[in-house]
Amino acid sequence: MNAQLGKTTAPVGYFTEDNSIDAVNARMGQDVSPRLATVMACLVKHLHLFAREIELTQEEWDFGIDFLTRTGQICTQERQEFILLSDTLGLSMLVDAINNRRPEGATENTVFGPFHVNGAPVRKMGDEISFDGKGESCLFIGRVLDLDGKPVEGARIDVWSDNADGYYDVQQPDIQPKWNNRGVFITSADGHYSFVGIKPVSYPIPDDGPVGQMLGKLGRHPYRPAHMHYMVRADGFQKLVTHTFVGGDPYLTSDTVFGVKKTLVAPFERVEGGSTTWRSDFDFVLARPNETR
Amino acid sequence: MNAQLGKTTAPVGYFTEDNSIDAVNARMGQDVSPRLATVMACLVKHLHLFAREIELTQEEWDFGIDFLTRTGQICTQERQEFILLSDTLGLSMLVDAINNRRPEGATENTVFGPFHVNGAPVRKMGDEISFDGKGESCLFIGRVLDLDGKPVEGARIDVWSDNADGYYDVQQPDIQPKWNNRGVFITSADGHYSFVGIKPVSYPIPDDGPVGQMLGKLGRHPYRPAHMHYMVRADGFQKLVTHTFVGGDPYLTSDTVFGVKKTLVAPFERVEGGSTTWRSDFDFVLARPNETR
Repeated sequence: MNAQLGKTTAPVGYFTEDNSIDAVNARMGQDVSPRLATVMACLVKHLHLFAREIELTQEEWDFGIDFLTRTGQICTQERQEFILLSDTLGLSMLVDAINNRRPEGATENTVFGPFHVNGAPVRKMGDEISFDGKGESCLFIGRVLDLDGKPVEGARIDVWSDNADGYYDVQQPDIQPKWNNRGVFITSADGHYSFVGIKPVSYPIPDDGPVGQMLGKLGRHPYRPAHMHYMVRADGFQKLVTHTFVGGDPYLTSDTVFGVKKTLVAPFERVEGGSTTWRSDFDFVLARPNETR
Repeated sequence: MNAQLGKTTAPVGYFTEDNSIDAVNARMGQDVSPRLATVMACLVKHLHLFAREIELTQEEWDFGIDFLTRTGQICTQERQEFILLSDTLGLSMLVDAINNRRPEGATENTVFGPFHVNGAPVRKMGDEISFDGKGESCLFIGRVLDLDGKPVEGARIDVWSDNADGYYDVQQPDIQPKWNNRGVFITSADGHYSFVGIKPVSYPIPDDGPVGQMLGKLGRHPYRPAHMHYMVRADGFQKLVTHTFVGGDPYLTSDTVFGVKKTLVAPFERVEGGSTTWRSDFDFVLARPNETR
């Protein structure tokens, strides 16, 4: 294996089974972006190590080419099967983890997912976000804090969830009210937030394509545990992209996209005699740009 | 790293950056095909090791998703961009090498390529295969032998090449005569073969898509050195899929799909006063199924 990935300049001669990684990486030109050279050399290395370790057969290679082709061809404006593939192989969560290393105590990131929409209306604290009359109402309430426990003023909290049938509004544009189960809330000096939505429900990712077939062959289900999406941004802090998960959900330990983190499982408590059926308390703790690990 | 790929059964808890490979592979069900489990576990391992080693950024991941999507979407009945991607990253040649390990002296395999067509006419030994009047004529001549040097009778030699403009007939269905530069020849007891084609020319793989963009960014050209394709089959022998390359071609050491092997570079000699302008001698040595290394 070449220790100086992407820096090979000496000719390595003709391609052989044994020198395949160096033979390919030696072909890169001299004026290639150093980062691109590093990324591609590492990609070639692991692609070849994969094929060698399992002694990939020609028939399996044919299947792989066909699988990737079908994955690309099912993609549309509304459907991104390669993101589903990355999600279900844990790659999306790994990239998210690598790029969002925070100190203990800061709220952890999780996958952004394909269902966020820019431009959701800014609402008043305490407002409703669910307009289809379905589902069990839930008060979401808490604070946005820094790592010292001080409230963060002016934090912009963008929230979105599925409806009681397990669909986001963008998946049912003709059925759902516009901006159903979406809204933006901005904290004042006390850092508090609250809004009324529904208790989210677990749902399957789209599983009628190549990724669904893969999950089936691997004996895996396509479900995500119930969760509320949050994107929290405030000047002087790292952007937080996360969910809170409904404690007790049967899919908590088998999220098909591996998005669950222990610290993101939130309490959902039934309220007796309140204006909502459920209540979920969760504080978001933001890290400053230099607060990493 | 998990030494028992695909065999993990104990729960590994929630996904973290550190346990990502095990977290994904532990999710496989109990009734998965053992080979599929091995292949997928190894794929997940190398995909994650790749992302970790280079600390893949979110922006690079976004680009990768988009690149794969475009690669899938440009595929048609006539164009297979994922094969081009595999070819240009050396994966196709590696899979070919892994699956065709032969003893020294046996003719080596190389990539099949996307331009073979079943059903080419069987011709008489010595016949022409080039019908468009273009290019420099060449006599291809030699024998089909076993590893002991004995002639192989009844070997079916399927040959195909580009025309003098660098295109296979299937790339120009409206222009070229049907079966131009293609034919099948069957050896008699002496094992000899001969046919008249043209001296092949080097050509670029289709480079107006994502793979061409990749090659450009990597400072690589899209050319293949000139070659004649052969598929040789005979009862009791391994199928041989190979090329002979035109000695002296400027792209011999930089074939964009890494198909060149030293033993496959053939002499092409100019003939004085003969019926063809060139002559290329090459013997094919077939291995029996148990003759491997």
